[in-house]
Amino acid sequence: MKKKWLFTPGPTPIPPEALLAMAQPIDYHRSDAAVALIKDVLEKLKHVFQTENDVLFLTSSGTGAMEGAVANLLSRGDKVIVIRSGKFGERWSEICTAYGIEVIPIDVTWGNSVEPQAVETLLVQHPDVRAVFATLCETSTGALHDIEALACLTRVRPTLLVVDAVSALGADDLQMDNWGVDVVVSCSQKGLMTPPGLAFVALNQRAWDAIERSDLPKYYFDFRKAYESGLEGSVPYTPAITLLTALQCALDRICVEGIRRTIDRHNLLASATRSAVKALGLPLFAASPANTLTSIRLPTEIDGKAFVNLMRDTYGITYAGGQSQLSGKIVRIAHLGCMNENDVIVAISAFERGLVEIGYDIPVGAGVTAAQEIFAR
Amino acid sequence: MKKKWLFTPGPTPIPPEALLAMAQPIDYHRSDAAVALIKDVLEKLKHVFQTENDVLFLTSSGTGAMEGAVANLLSRGDKVIVIRSGKFGERWSEICTAYGIEVIPIDVTWGNSVEPQAVETLLVQHPDVRAVFATLCETSTGALHDIEALACLTRVRPTLLVVDAVSALGADDLQMDNWGVDVVVSCSQKGLMTPPGLAFVALNQRAWDAIERSDLPKYYFDFRKAYESGLEGSVPYTPAITLLTALQCALDRICVEGIRRTIDRHNLLASATRSAVKALGLPLFAASPANTLTSIRLPTEIDGKAFVNLMRDTYGITYAGGQSQLSGKIVRIAHLGCMNENDVIVAISAFERGLVEIGYDIPVGAGVTAAQEIFAR
Repeated sequence: MKKKWLFTPGPTPIPPEALLAMAQPIDYHRSDAAVALIKDVLEKLKHVFQTENDVLFLTSSGTGAMEGAVANLLSRGDKVIVIRSGKFGERWSEICTAYGIEVIPIDVTWGNSVEPQAVETLLVQHPDVRAVFATLCETSTGALHDIEALACLTRVRPTLLVVDAVSALGADDLQMDNWGVDVVVSCSQKGLMTPPGLAFVALNQRAWDAIERSDLPKYYFDFRKAYESGLEGSVPYTPAITLLTALQCALDRICVEGIRRTIDRHNLLASATRSAVKALGLPLFAASPANTLTSIRLPTEIDGKAFVNLMRDTYGITYAGGQSQLSGKIVRIAHLGCMNENDVIVAISAFERGLVEIGYDIPVGAGVTAAQEIFAR
Repeated sequence: MKKKWLFTPGPTPIPPEALLAMAQPIDYHRSDAAVALIKDVLEKLKHVFQTENDVLFLTSSGTGAMEGAVANLLSRGDKVIVIRSGKFGERWSEICTAYGIEVIPIDVTWGNSVEPQAVETLLVQHPDVRAVFATLCETSTGALHDIEALACLTRVRPTLLVVDAVSALGADDLQMDNWGVDVVVSCSQKGLMTPPGLAFVALNQRAWDAIERSDLPKYYFDFRKAYESGLEGSVPYTPAITLLTALQCALDRICVEGIRRTIDRHNLLASATRSAVKALGLPLFAASPANTLTSIRLPTEIDGKAFVNLMRDTYGITYAGGQSQLSGKIVRIAHLGCMNENDVIVAISAFERGLVEIGYDIPVGAGVTAAQEIFAR
């Protein structure tokens, strides 16, 4: 009796009421009902972003919103700092380069998180830097970055802090207003439990001021148009209306739970997973692991790709493998979105059985027991 | 017993099996099943585009693919001709301007279609024009443009023909290969009977050669990355996987019917609708109406906005009103996608009853009878 379990850091499982909402006959995106839907979703997103600023949405994946941030905030010849500690930090760098922006990189060993001191040193050396591009959770490694510390550096300077919270929004804490983060980018298919196809951007007044000065080309990702339409529950271009319907269901879940408790739940699930991995004698890959996902460094005798394929094809359990330089070397287990203790127990128990099947010696049951001990506290 | 009927030129009704496919638990977009899905969809899209060229897809609305066409095909300082006969022709112009492209416009009165002779004159005057941007069906007016005639002009010149077939693909004929069209752009929520959120681009070798020379900034909409990933059933960024699942169901319908018969069906539905409108004594708005939708010019004593709202709010019948300068002046009835004779009869009979309700004098039943006569032939 094969049953599928999805433990990838996006897409994440969709709540059943959201799945059924998407199976309803489609509505016209200019109807009164659609206007009410868009207004409701934009209001509830503020709660998830922990901000009083307006949030806007785009029909694209998270990368589209990242590109939008570059194209809307910057101008030709601008200089920026990019923290590169994995595939998604590198993406900020690639996008900036595509637009002719001068990138001052801070390269961090994959698995590690940036030292705020390193950012401060560069900010002092280059006071004309327009923005720092950072990542809340670097999904390729599972490392959490100290965004609050970075915001302490940028909010006292004329430098914007732009944060990729694509995978971590709703799982790891990001207090946009309290910390003074200027721009936060995210998307639908991670903590927001909605299929991929929607991206979100929250911007404070400093960011909007920069947008007024920007001269880079943009059209579809023009934040001003998205923002102005959003105020009236409208959109400049046809939106992914079925995904907005699903998002509304998912946001209702988060708003009922409350974002602080949502983050606490993710913290609990992450703690239990990390404890289980340690009890199995395996090292965590990230030095400062996020609540979003747990990356496990595999012993060199294990072929990580083959392991992930075995679990998916034979048992219906989908973990994520390593990307780029980490291909085959790590396994990533997400505990993200519509998940609770039972999901984590499934993820860990299947992981144990998989290791046994490929002949790797572990203390069977130790992972599950360690997780149970956390949950039973 | 209120039942909803959607006669807007996008979104169009979704086939029931596609609705149910989207209600299935979500899959990881890097699974073997997802790879097979993407390959299957890209292959079947070729049939709809009537091309042997590879088709690529993007997670965005059709406008994203339009912007992609500009950013991928052109370079700084390039000069182009844009045919502007409505809101969507103007969009080509706006996008080109946003990227610093010099636009030579051909302004056509809304409701009319471009005279190919006017394009030829400009091409002779400006032999250095890189591309002509055209629209198959100008959705804001319902006018069909003679793309075959335009292709005769461009294919013998070093000038690309880029066609917005966003609303008309699968409804109005566009023989990309036979006619020699260089680039065709479309999206999911029109003739392809899928919710909004996916855009498509088909490009021939001349277009790919231009892409190699292009120096405009792009990242998310980079056609080369989308194309290269697509060859392996992959994607550079997380795709709208649930929409791809729905698209596969819709493409299966078109492939079973066959694209030629799909277009013939749309032609039949459009002919019946036009005949009905004439029988009611109302003028068609477009001089050369498309199969995609029928635009009806309303008598000045009818408030088009109020009429559209009445039909939607009281009777669940959604027509589209006029956009921009045509607001309140026309009604647009789409016969597009998952539609047959019965849908057209509903659209026309409700239209008749609505006109009676607002006190406009029409020969009751004449529209339905005229449509029936076409269908009964």
